[in-house]
Amino acid sequence: MDVHARLSGVRAGGGWGVTGLWMDSSTPLPPLPHLSVLFLLFLVAPGAWAAGYKTCPKVMPDMLNVHLVAHTHDDVGWLKTVDQYFYGIHNDIQHAGVQYILDSVISALLAEPTRRFIYVEIAFFSRWWHQQTNATQEVVRDLVRQGRLEFVNGGWVMNDEATTHYGAIIDQMTLGLRFLEDRFGSDGRPHVAWHIDPFGHSREQASLFAQMGFDGFFFGRLDYQDKIVRKAEREMELMWRASASLKPPVADLFTSVLPNLYNPPDSMCWDTVCADKPVVDDPRSPEYNAEKLVAYFLQLAAAQGHSYRTNHTVMTMGSDFQYENANMWFKNLDKLIRLVNAQVLLSNALAWLSGSKKDFIFCRELNISVCPFSQKAKSFQVIIYNPLGRKIDHMVRLPVSKHVYIVKDPKDAVVPNDVVTLSSSDNQELLFSASVPALGFSIYSVTEVPDQLPRTHNLQPKFRKPLPSILAIQNEYIQARFDPDTGLLMEIRNLERNLLLPVRQAFFWYNASVGNNLSSQASGAYIFRPYQQEPLPVSRWAQTQLVKTALVQEVHQNFSAWCSQVIRLYAGQRYLELEWTVGPIPVGDSWGKEIISRFDTALETEGLFYTDSNGREIMERRRDYRPSWKLNQTEPVAGNYYPVNSRIYIKDREMQLTVLTDRSQGGSSLRDGSIELMVHRRLLKDDGRGVGEPLLEEGSGSWVRGRHLVLLDEVRTAATGHRLLAEKEVLAPQVVLASGGGASYHSKVTQVKQFSGLQRELPSSVHLLTLARWGPKMLLLRLEHQFAVGEDSGRNLSSPVTLDLRDLFSTFTITHLRETTLAANQLRTSATRLQWMSDMGTGPVPHPSGSQQDPAIITLQPMEIRTFLVSVQWKKDS
Amino acid sequence: MDVHARLSGVRAGGGWGVTGLWMDSSTPLPPLPHLSVLFLLFLVAPGAWAAGYKTCPKVMPDMLNVHLVAHTHDDVGWLKTVDQYFYGIHNDIQHAGVQYILDSVISALLAEPTRRFIYVEIAFFSRWWHQQTNATQEVVRDLVRQGRLEFVNGGWVMNDEATTHYGAIIDQMTLGLRFLEDRFGSDGRPHVAWHIDPFGHSREQASLFAQMGFDGFFFGRLDYQDKIVRKAEREMELMWRASASLKPPVADLFTSVLPNLYNPPDSMCWDTVCADKPVVDDPRSPEYNAEKLVAYFLQLAAAQGHSYRTNHTVMTMGSDFQYENANMWFKNLDKLIRLVNAQVLLSNALAWLSGSKKDFIFCRELNISVCPFSQKAKSFQVIIYNPLGRKIDHMVRLPVSKHVYIVKDPKDAVVPNDVVTLSSSDNQELLFSASVPALGFSIYSVTEVPDQLPRTHNLQPKFRKPLPSILAIQNEYIQARFDPDTGLLMEIRNLERNLLLPVRQAFFWYNASVGNNLSSQASGAYIFRPYQQEPLPVSRWAQTQLVKTALVQEVHQNFSAWCSQVIRLYAGQRYLELEWTVGPIPVGDSWGKEIISRFDTALETEGLFYTDSNGREIMERRRDYRPSWKLNQTEPVAGNYYPVNSRIYIKDREMQLTVLTDRSQGGSSLRDGSIELMVHRRLLKDDGRGVGEPLLEEGSGSWVRGRHLVLLDEVRTAATGHRLLAEKEVLAPQVVLASGGGASYHSKVTQVKQFSGLQRELPSSVHLLTLARWGPKMLLLRLEHQFAVGEDSGRNLSSPVTLDLRDLFSTFTITHLRETTLAANQLRTSATRLQWMSDMGTGPVPHPSGSQQDPAIITLQPMEIRTFLVSVQWKKDS
Repeated sequence: MDVHARLSGVRAGGGWGVTGLWMDSSTPLPPLPHLSVLFLLFLVAPGAWAAGYKTCPKVMPDMLNVHLVAHTHDDVGWLKTVDQYFYGIHNDIQHAGVQYILDSVISALLAEPTRRFIYVEIAFFSRWWHQQTNATQEVVRDLVRQGRLEFVNGGWVMNDEATTHYGAIIDQMTLGLRFLEDRFGSDGRPHVAWHIDPFGHSREQASLFAQMGFDGFFFGRLDYQDKIVRKAEREMELMWRASASLKPPVADLFTSVLPNLYNPPDSMCWDTVCADKPVVDDPRSPEYNAEKLVAYFLQLAAAQGHSYRTNHTVMTMGSDFQYENANMWFKNLDKLIRLVNAQVLLSNALAWLSGSKKDFIFCRELNISVCPFSQKAKSFQVIIYNPLGRKIDHMVRLPVSKHVYIVKDPKDAVVPNDVVTLSSSDNQELLFSASVPALGFSIYSVTEVPDQLPRTHNLQPKFRKPLPSILAIQNEYIQARFDPDTGLLMEIRNLERNLLLPVRQAFFWYNASVGNNLSSQASGAYIFRPYQQEPLPVSRWAQTQLVKTALVQEVHQNFSAWCSQVIRLYAGQRYLELEWTVGPIPVGDSWGKEIISRFDTALETEGLFYTDSNGREIMERRRDYRPSWKLNQTEPVAGNYYPVNSRIYIKDREMQLTVLTDRSQGGSSLRDGSIELMVHRRLLKDDGRGVGEPLLEEGSGSWVRGRHLVLLDEVRTAATGHRLLAEKEVLAPQVVLASGGGASYHSKVTQVKQFSGLQRELPSSVHLLTLARWGPKMLLLRLEHQFAVGEDSGRNLSSPVTLDLRDLFSTFTITHLRETTLAANQLRTSATRLQWMSDMGTGPVPHPSGSQQDPAIITLQPMEIRTFLVSVQWKKDS
Repeated sequence: MDVHARLSGVRAGGGWGVTGLWMDSSTPLPPLPHLSVLFLLFLVAPGAWAAGYKTCPKVMPDMLNVHLVAHTHDDVGWLKTVDQYFYGIHNDIQHAGVQYILDSVISALLAEPTRRFIYVEIAFFSRWWHQQTNATQEVVRDLVRQGRLEFVNGGWVMNDEATTHYGAIIDQMTLGLRFLEDRFGSDGRPHVAWHIDPFGHSREQASLFAQMGFDGFFFGRLDYQDKIVRKAEREMELMWRASASLKPPVADLFTSVLPNLYNPPDSMCWDTVCADKPVVDDPRSPEYNAEKLVAYFLQLAAAQGHSYRTNHTVMTMGSDFQYENANMWFKNLDKLIRLVNAQVLLSNALAWLSGSKKDFIFCRELNISVCPFSQKAKSFQVIIYNPLGRKIDHMVRLPVSKHVYIVKDPKDAVVPNDVVTLSSSDNQELLFSASVPALGFSIYSVTEVPDQLPRTHNLQPKFRKPLPSILAIQNEYIQARFDPDTGLLMEIRNLERNLLLPVRQAFFWYNASVGNNLSSQASGAYIFRPYQQEPLPVSRWAQTQLVKTALVQEVHQNFSAWCSQVIRLYAGQRYLELEWTVGPIPVGDSWGKEIISRFDTALETEGLFYTDSNGREIMERRRDYRPSWKLNQTEPVAGNYYPVNSRIYIKDREMQLTVLTDRSQGGSSLRDGSIELMVHRRLLKDDGRGVGEPLLEEGSGSWVRGRHLVLLDEVRTAATGHRLLAEKEVLAPQVVLASGGGASYHSKVTQVKQFSGLQRELPSSVHLLTLARWGPKMLLLRLEHQFAVGEDSGRNLSSPVTLDLRDLFSTFTITHLRETTLAANQLRTSATRLQWMSDMGTGPVPHPSGSQQDPAIITLQPMEIRTFLVSVQWKKDS
């Protein structure tokens, strides 16, 4: 590159009233008190006089003006052919489709008038133009007229400089520029030349550009040594005298080296082909980054500005074939401009948002005995909320320190409590039974008794081989007995119904398929695929220990270093609780493992078992069978697994063994009389379905604790047990802690310590599915008949049930009631569905409507859910 | 999945005037006489009665209706978090940004009213909605009202079915549907449930959907065995009785299995994340595929339709997180619909376009002696067009068969010709010298003389070691002598000027850097990086053979199996022509090779050499030097290479040795008195700059043939030689063949056999750069002074030159003449450029204007190009 003169400054005014834009080289850079970010535009002319500059954004004379140039660089042929680039063919070679770029840019420009864009390659633009409607062409003319779409360079292509003949350069520039002249007149006439990609800039090219009337010339590539010197000397802009023969200034050309080739700054590429983080300006988002980004940008702009002599600097926001989805770029640029030019506000907003939550303490890790608050506080309140329509008794368990505590109920009466030491750690848990009214809460207070050590029920690991005496736990309803040889559960007895069922329960593991020759499909996040169909026992026996207190009886079983279980009976409880802890599953033997808990009985189940469908109706399952086609069973285990969201059961003509889960698990009955549930999995291979990693959690995800509730009952009454227990398990009470012990608590005389939202409990068959605020004086109410047809023949709970809603609730009276469809978005009376004739012969049936009497007296049919939008009058106290 | 009934057909009319849409199962599929492609929408209701169906597109009762459902599937959390998916963060994990999807879909829907789209996940939609302006929200409401944007499913998420509790399902559906109800009322109410991704469909989910009032349910995943049966039995659609307790049809649900999970058909994914070929409907494009695509689509649709009982079938056009750039999808769907539903016309258009070119034969491979036409024809015409402003003599060379030919000039006079056999093959070439007037053409005729074998100058490879006698070729201007030991060029003599210069010319190769420890940068498409700085000789000597005829004298040099050269002098030629043939370059030794032709002389050039800048002005180059910074030379060879587009020369005070190239090549002078040009490269490594492959051409790209024209002259007159020769070389005559030999030719009495567009030749210093049609009575004219200031001191060709354009041209008279800037897009008088003050002290200078006399009498300053838009009056004859 031949440079004959240094740029020194002061642009010629020529009587046009142009103020000085370029400073004399002796003038130091002005301080940068503020920073203004504008959209594109090249040569900022405050008192603009050339037609094309009239539409320029205003600049700030006392600021560093950063010109964000939204652009795309579209090679007219490179790795693909011109047509492949234009249409977006062979995107496997390079993702590039110019037709979409132009579509998308026009659309983004129309969406927001402050946006601007430059376009360069007329070979592509003309192809696109010819495919547009007259209306679109008119819109584009408007954008060009307004300077929102600006052509730069404007040749047919951005020609190479090193290897081209001047005749060809002139021809291709003429071709492109004529296209623009014919379509847009002087509005579309490029004012600057733009050779961001060519390397090895020739003097002749500059001379030709000058003779074509360009005001300036921007390029990206130059010798790295040259660039270092120019940045240091602030000679990134220069006047190029590009001919030894032509009389100055005919071949003089203002030339500017772009700061970053033609790319956007690091971390600020917001194109579909980039992976930079977009601007997240919502401070509530966990991904919020606006403040950091602005700080980074300011630093960047200031640094860049130092390589140029004026208070103007360009940032090229775009690159090769970018803006195929222009909205991505513009949306983030819009935000950046707004953020940088003004939303200080952001940090204020953040401050405002912080610390808004207080008072209540939610201990989310109670199931693993972690709650720093209750472990430290000397006194606190326990608020227990019960969302059910019936009163419950709930055993509260809280991690505490090694002390004696006094627990008082809402009426200030002392209730019995225990402090037990956990087998798995040195931690203690406080136990007490709380009673909570229907749709309400009770507040219990807990106070440490100073200087007194508890007579804790020490469960430190003093496990031993099972003794030759029979271990048993028992309350008024249930007895569970354990095998003296193995320590495993051996027998369950329902004392109330006088039922006895030998039940052997233990843990097993399937070795997971790793995707080898024998089975190409690996077991993974999506696929359960055992390598062998027969599971192996985790251990053939368990070390056991018995714990009995007034509140609880427990047998602790230790199967291995990573598998243990507590089998528990609280006083008054009609089910056996199995709390298992599994993990981290060892995989040092290179086998991924899928752990099941299996119950084996002698019930003659004839291949049948039952699982819930989303916790509501019950589905009959038959081993190796599908109701709608003849199954070719290729997976004897996995092919018989079904989702268990709340329960799985087996039965014979007399007895039913039901296992309720506290979470969704896979389950099956692979042999008659058997139930199994998968409790944990740890796998070494990805199953190739998209997650891209094996199910190989580390840390807190590597072990799990859960509960299985086991009911033994007669078949005809079993539904009462599992329906009501499942309801309590799914909508278990929320336990919330609050500071303030006995002392401070008493001072607040108005505090309500117990409350029920209902005037009376709901019938057993009715489940209060939803009661939620829908508006200031509006509630959403859903009532469900939770028994299926014929399910309960004992207490007749499968019959229709009628309910009077009028005085049911304690805090409001219902003034108006409108029944809706299930999701509450349509009134039931006006809801219409397409109705289909089927060969079941039901024919068109009118949509069932509400009852005819007082609309607040409602009848629920078995399994029916009725949904109401309820207008209410709040009672004074509430 | 529990299916209680087969779908049989006939939708209930219910007095609404609905025509039968579903047929009875016993009715066979209707024939498919036509095919109509519609946009999306699910349950097509011709006499629509539910609010949401009013806006459905019309269906064709007698056709297979293919419903193209434009959709995106947006997991609310999967590999990324919800916010990461929404904003498009961590696109390296998965490319997905829902904010852009919704932006883009709305914008695409607005662009074209026939487009429709469904959206599902309200967790995302609500996030997006809250960030929109009131105006945008209003626009979206309109789209929803018109059915152009339709919500389906409409829950907060598309919930999993296998592991979820029904209470949670109801809650999340309620949350999403309420959002829609509040914003859009019944317009936004989803009519169908849409669970395209969940696997393991639960009966309860269907029951809940029915109770929510959905008219139908679409899903994608089912057991592969189930699907096979359903397709065969045409049970892909069914009525699902989803409750054992609820009274039918409360829990009955029309359910449809989508044909292709939820993906588009193969090869029809037009999203930014896909690489399928877009619809190219322009038959002129080499990528045209519309016809094939339509045929494929028809076949596909017919096959798919056979799995369903009605004449309706769905194609899901979208997939995971698609439509981030909705325009891509819609643009191609628009085209597909238009093409399939009508625009037969295509094949017609193709036919119409074919065979439009005729008569003239362009032989584009003359330089490698390939032209099937001239090789077969017994007689033909040779039209030679000369674009220069001066008459030329041109040696025509055409491949012919082994015969004797008679060649006649435009005046029917016989001209001498030779037939020579080529050294590189068994082919013959016909040679004759043609004279062509300025800006005109001459037509020569060639006729085979039957039954006569030529006395060919056989150049079959009978090469021999050089003889101990001095080989020389010579015409009236030039003599070239060859070294008897090596066969290399040894000496050039300019007989006219009495100059003698010992010149040794040979071929060498640089071994290319492969990017190892020594030099991490490999030589490749972008980078020339020799591993060693000293090139190795291809051969130290050449086998030679001398050929002399009346028309040409040639020395054939054979350096190796892949490198040969013909050094040639035609009669009357002032330069030596070196035609080299190089390739395929052997790389079996694992070295990439870069081949140069090097001229070594004893000229004392003091580190200086000269190259052209884009074929126009000449740049002085100094070895290991840059004019604008102190160079740290790290690449002694590559760092001294410069582009040579037309010429490179060296000189001392007396003599100048100029080499003209026939193409752009890299060149340098790495030692005083030396010139080298790179003629070919074959490399084994990619240089890592984006092409992604090494420069390792196979086939026709593996060998090259080119020419170097060597001029030896006095320095003061050298410019005349190389300027005029370069002009002839760059704008060499176009040789076009036509059928019709002497006989048929004579019958066309009116045919012009010689023509010149100029009344007189242009002065030597004036180059006719452009004469091109600009409009019906308008031409673009560029005239160039092709000498630089002071360049020619011999004939004074560097002086300004004045030209009278008024009667210059033979076919038109100039009626008006407007001077423009170089690219002809601005009038020169009104053109304005920003003017810059520099410390060169030129100050503001008015833009040079045309001369003051008759505007058609123009003066050209050295190196000046003047551009005119010329209005013309065509003369009668032309």
